[in-house]
Amino acid sequence: MKNFITILFGIQYPIIQAGMVWNSGWKLASASSNSGILGLIGAGSMYPDVLRKHIQKCTLATDKPFGVNVPLLYPNIEEIMQIIVEEDVKIVFTSAGNPSTWTHWLKNHGITVVHVVSSVKFALKAETAGVDAIVAEGFEAGGHNGREETTTFTLIPMVCKAVSIPVIAAGGIATGRGMLSAMTLGAQGVQIGSRFVASKESSAHQDFKTEVLKAKDGATQLTLKELTPVRLLKNKFYQDVVRLYQSHPTLEDLKKLLGRARAKKGMFEGDLEEGELEIGQIAGLIDDILPVKEIVEQIITEFNATNKEMSNLKL
Amino acid sequence: MKNFITILFGIQYPIIQAGMVWNSGWKLASASSNSGILGLIGAGSMYPDVLRKHIQKCTLATDKPFGVNVPLLYPNIEEIMQIIVEEDVKIVFTSAGNPSTWTHWLKNHGITVVHVVSSVKFALKAETAGVDAIVAEGFEAGGHNGREETTTFTLIPMVCKAVSIPVIAAGGIATGRGMLSAMTLGAQGVQIGSRFVASKESSAHQDFKTEVLKAKDGATQLTLKELTPVRLLKNKFYQDVVRLYQSHPTLEDLKKLLGRARAKKGMFEGDLEEGELEIGQIAGLIDDILPVKEIVEQIITEFNATNKEMSNLKL
Repeated sequence: MKNFITILFGIQYPIIQAGMVWNSGWKLASASSNSGILGLIGAGSMYPDVLRKHIQKCTLATDKPFGVNVPLLYPNIEEIMQIIVEEDVKIVFTSAGNPSTWTHWLKNHGITVVHVVSSVKFALKAETAGVDAIVAEGFEAGGHNGREETTTFTLIPMVCKAVSIPVIAAGGIATGRGMLSAMTLGAQGVQIGSRFVASKESSAHQDFKTEVLKAKDGATQLTLKELTPVRLLKNKFYQDVVRLYQSHPTLEDLKKLLGRARAKKGMFEGDLEEGELEIGQIAGLIDDILPVKEIVEQIITEFNATNKEMSNLKL
Repeated sequence: MKNFITILFGIQYPIIQAGMVWNSGWKLASASSNSGILGLIGAGSMYPDVLRKHIQKCTLATDKPFGVNVPLLYPNIEEIMQIIVEEDVKIVFTSAGNPSTWTHWLKNHGITVVHVVSSVKFALKAETAGVDAIVAEGFEAGGHNGREETTTFTLIPMVCKAVSIPVIAAGGIATGRGMLSAMTLGAQGVQIGSRFVASKESSAHQDFKTEVLKAKDGATQLTLKELTPVRLLKNKFYQDVVRLYQSHPTLEDLKKLLGRARAKKGMFEGDLEEGELEIGQIAGLIDDILPVKEIVEQIITEFNATNKEMSNLKL
């Protein structure tokens, strides 16, 4: 199968493994790329020199295309972008920031640029900035998230209607059925996060992966909306946040409780009580930790089987 | 096409027109049933004698099956149920309450019973109570809504996995593409609300219908979570609620601001400033007010065209 997304990235299946803090280093990204999808290294949790090493190792581990996800609000953003060019990365996904700042510069260096948005307004802004494609991410997604709370089911058709560049759906997708459903809404491809947290190659702590398997529906909540909205598992830290809200905290109180490095503590170091555990609502459907290759095969098999089943339906 | 849902209700297409307060009287319900889908009268905004008249008029206006949606927390619930039996209604959708209270009694009167849920837990509870099918409604839906904030995209596969009775998807569905997408996730049918608010036959005030057309993504928000969570357009009343929240209100303060009859004021009387305007996120995709028959035809045409298009995709 070929479409705008497979051609844009030179990949077999229109699936992107999301670049996620503390989860997606070179092992996950190269395993993804070697499975026929696009692997992304998540720069958001890496110092510049760490990122450089991950890119170099990924380059050695796969001869397939891979990319880097860069949150544009990153403090060392100029250094990060310089490393990306120096290490000859060909695909960059940008998020959390203004797409007009770096898109032109990246494209001048021959890099394919995709920007992650959570609303029609930012989709249009990204299109104007000249990106090659958009990831439209719904409210159900794990981690940092938009303020409008627009869900995948409503965001995808609205964004597809508004822009003329290809749209990649994200938020709530973990299966072949979900992938087909998102493409039925008009997306040309999907970005999958939570499902790859529960993969053998994710760099997340084993205890966090196990916690993801235990999650049922209702296990996550979008919170800390006054800072940056983030979807978390409802662990002790989350309950501490809930308790703090009851005392009408100031922004400073919230920042103080959040402190620093809670995401690392939770997802990378496995402190399930005090850490931030970022995962999407679809965790409720994830029951096993598998190698990336098997996850991708399951998705493809289910996609084709469901599509065959659906094609018999005629109203 | 025949499936569990079309057979269960004796309808042509597996589509349910949602029973909505102040929108779905006998005109909307009979127009829906006459268009080959299941029309529902929304009892939630009707005094018992008003409901009886609507049922009688609907019976005269269509020879096709129709039903009544009953919020189980309704104050005159016993009288309402008695009227439903007396007027020979054959299908009841229950919501907002415990499904075990009335299901057995209704089924003993030969009535098909469907219960609306927003979580896997309540889906299992409804199945145990003996309902014939479940409506699983996601976070993006308009009006009253679940506390878990689980979206349609993640709720449907999780509920389908948990129960063995048929599942009807609701929340965010307004088009044939959306319907196909929801059925791809495992639903056997769909319940559509917001799209029918913007229909000729809805009893909503014309000014509210026009306001729905103007809504873009981000135009609604789930609020008043301490009372009953409700998704509203962000009008003056909504902004008043936001302002009240800034002063750390008690439950009593919230109840006092909400007062009584705000939904009627907004949706039925057209007071766009002071009324509650309940609508789903998918309002951002609705651009015209059409007769129900045309809406249904558009949905069916788009469903079949999209399905044909999707069936060519093979990974």
